[in-house]
Amino acid sequence: MSMKAVVMINSGLEVVEAPLPQPGPGEALVKVLAAGICGSDLHCVTHGAQLLDSAKEAAGVELFKLDEPVVLGHEFCAEIVEYGPGCRETLAPGSRVVSVPFLLRPEPVTLGFGGPGTPGAYAEYMLLSEDLLVPVPDHVPDDIATLAEPLAVALHAVNRGGLGPDDVPLVIGCGPIGLAVIAVLKMRGIGPIVASDFSPSRRAMATALGADVVVDPRETSPYESWQEVAASSDATKWGRQTPMFPGAGLRPSVVFECVGVPGIIQQILAGAAPCSKVVVAGLCMVQDSFYPSFAIMKEIDLAFCISYTPEEFAQALGHIASGELQVEAFITSRVALDDVPEAFARLADPEKDAKIIVLP
Amino acid sequence: MSMKAVVMINSGLEVVEAPLPQPGPGEALVKVLAAGICGSDLHCVTHGAQLLDSAKEAAGVELFKLDEPVVLGHEFCAEIVEYGPGCRETLAPGSRVVSVPFLLRPEPVTLGFGGPGTPGAYAEYMLLSEDLLVPVPDHVPDDIATLAEPLAVALHAVNRGGLGPDDVPLVIGCGPIGLAVIAVLKMRGIGPIVASDFSPSRRAMATALGADVVVDPRETSPYESWQEVAASSDATKWGRQTPMFPGAGLRPSVVFECVGVPGIIQQILAGAAPCSKVVVAGLCMVQDSFYPSFAIMKEIDLAFCISYTPEEFAQALGHIASGELQVEAFITSRVALDDVPEAFARLADPEKDAKIIVLP
Repeated sequence: MSMKAVVMINSGLEVVEAPLPQPGPGEALVKVLAAGICGSDLHCVTHGAQLLDSAKEAAGVELFKLDEPVVLGHEFCAEIVEYGPGCRETLAPGSRVVSVPFLLRPEPVTLGFGGPGTPGAYAEYMLLSEDLLVPVPDHVPDDIATLAEPLAVALHAVNRGGLGPDDVPLVIGCGPIGLAVIAVLKMRGIGPIVASDFSPSRRAMATALGADVVVDPRETSPYESWQEVAASSDATKWGRQTPMFPGAGLRPSVVFECVGVPGIIQQILAGAAPCSKVVVAGLCMVQDSFYPSFAIMKEIDLAFCISYTPEEFAQALGHIASGELQVEAFITSRVALDDVPEAFARLADPEKDAKIIVLP
Repeated sequence: MSMKAVVMINSGLEVVEAPLPQPGPGEALVKVLAAGICGSDLHCVTHGAQLLDSAKEAAGVELFKLDEPVVLGHEFCAEIVEYGPGCRETLAPGSRVVSVPFLLRPEPVTLGFGGPGTPGAYAEYMLLSEDLLVPVPDHVPDDIATLAEPLAVALHAVNRGGLGPDDVPLVIGCGPIGLAVIAVLKMRGIGPIVASDFSPSRRAMATALGADVVVDPRETSPYESWQEVAASSDATKWGRQTPMFPGAGLRPSVVFECVGVPGIIQQILAGAAPCSKVVVAGLCMVQDSFYPSFAIMKEIDLAFCISYTPEEFAQALGHIASGELQVEAFITSRVALDDVPEAFARLADPEKDAKIIVLP
């Protein structure tokens, strides 16, 4: 038997017929019902070589090979088809599930970076580890369930920020991760939330998801807007102060970097209040430059993020299922597998789309 | 009346006669008994323009003017001579004191960056705010008491690291701050401590102050040494883990950056274990470059430091006075005011000196 899959090879995408993957011990064959396209998938296509170099040098991991076929896609909702050997089969075939994108093999596989033998979600079928399956409640639609993954990234980023209800967070960049961060902050009752993006449609989505003050950085400094909001908010809890800034009068808070281009970290170091925490959730794959002295004189904390824990993933799905996280507004289009290459091209324009869902 | 003072002007140092400063309301005139030369004083002379630009842009502070006289020196022990108006005079004239280097004026003055009217400690006399005076116990010598300031910097850096007794810290650079960090870690019973420096004499001091494994980075990677020590230590408490590194097997810990040159932060990002915290205590005054992807893929925390709280300053003196912090080994020379310009030149060579004390 064969299936349709979107294969990335030599930094191009093509739709091919591939053999159906075979579940190993402890694994389930699942049918992909919906898959989200992530910014890091775009990075794989546009900055594949840099991403591979970084992953190898930084983490000692060879994520994939540029000249070998890779099936991307690590945000998904799927239906159990059949189990491989040695499974407990607690969830019946036909059950809908999500999972953190890992296969628990002796040589662990990061799903979305493997070849057609262990494909990601831009395919009709994929393999999942039974131990990592999380059942999707009946009332949660397929496409909404895929959002557990990006919302887990945002939940982790917000957890890394260590914010309290009195914090005034600033979100720089309202792409999918920035928007998800706003949704999580709103759910937690943290705010007022200040956000910034060049794109009118993304600013509108930021407002829809709960941001209180949303600015176009071409017209208004997000850092000055943050200062005004922080100064006028009812916040009473203040972070640590150092004698370097005895009269600074600015409330330290958390800035979320959700852009991921060179220069943005230095811009934040220059604009943020003393003693701020900066959560870096943007994925900048190229060399960047900054002045350490800015971070030193303000005693800034930089907390870099890429992932989440399995608990945070399950919590994200729980928040979506309970309605605490309102995420429908994220999804701007739905496409078929054949249209994935074209969807990748469209995502380069922030006015057109935020989250595109693939329905195989 | 006049006094002798070392004045910095146009990035040069000269010994001059200056008028005795006049204590304002709430201030004491004190006679300087001993003053330490700090790395940031060297920075003021060698990178003055960059330091001024950074302080202005980052903190909105004009620390000093290059072409106007500045009396450096913010590590000191002094003796009360007389009080200005409106003082409580709790401490009698003749009492020995230390203080955080700030004058609590309506326009606050950072001591060590003011002119001869509010001089730093490279002078025979200076002014201090009565409310910030901390008495020095009789058994603590003048020169040892000056070390409260650099030890407060180290105490703050260690506090920023948030380490527990099971952590295996790595100290990159054994200049005065790196050595002070080692002394504080040793006092807290945190270890084994791994440290690294190019200089044989600084490595010897690191060992004397309590480092357990000290390497020459030309011969041995400090990151590999750290891995060996961490793997063989009895440590049982592990930090957070992310699914990006399910099998990494490395214990996240705290790296202290005590070098302050471009490239060192990227070197640490490349060498540190996933989920490490990096406390940046080195003062790099020029532009630096790094790959955010290294920090992102490892979920590194960067905590930048410059200062300390008044409580940490008082605690540092208390630890010195009680003998918990053994700091005699820091002091490598003592010089007179006339010899300060030459002492600055000598400090450029790490083989010659660590901490030089000025005795006016």
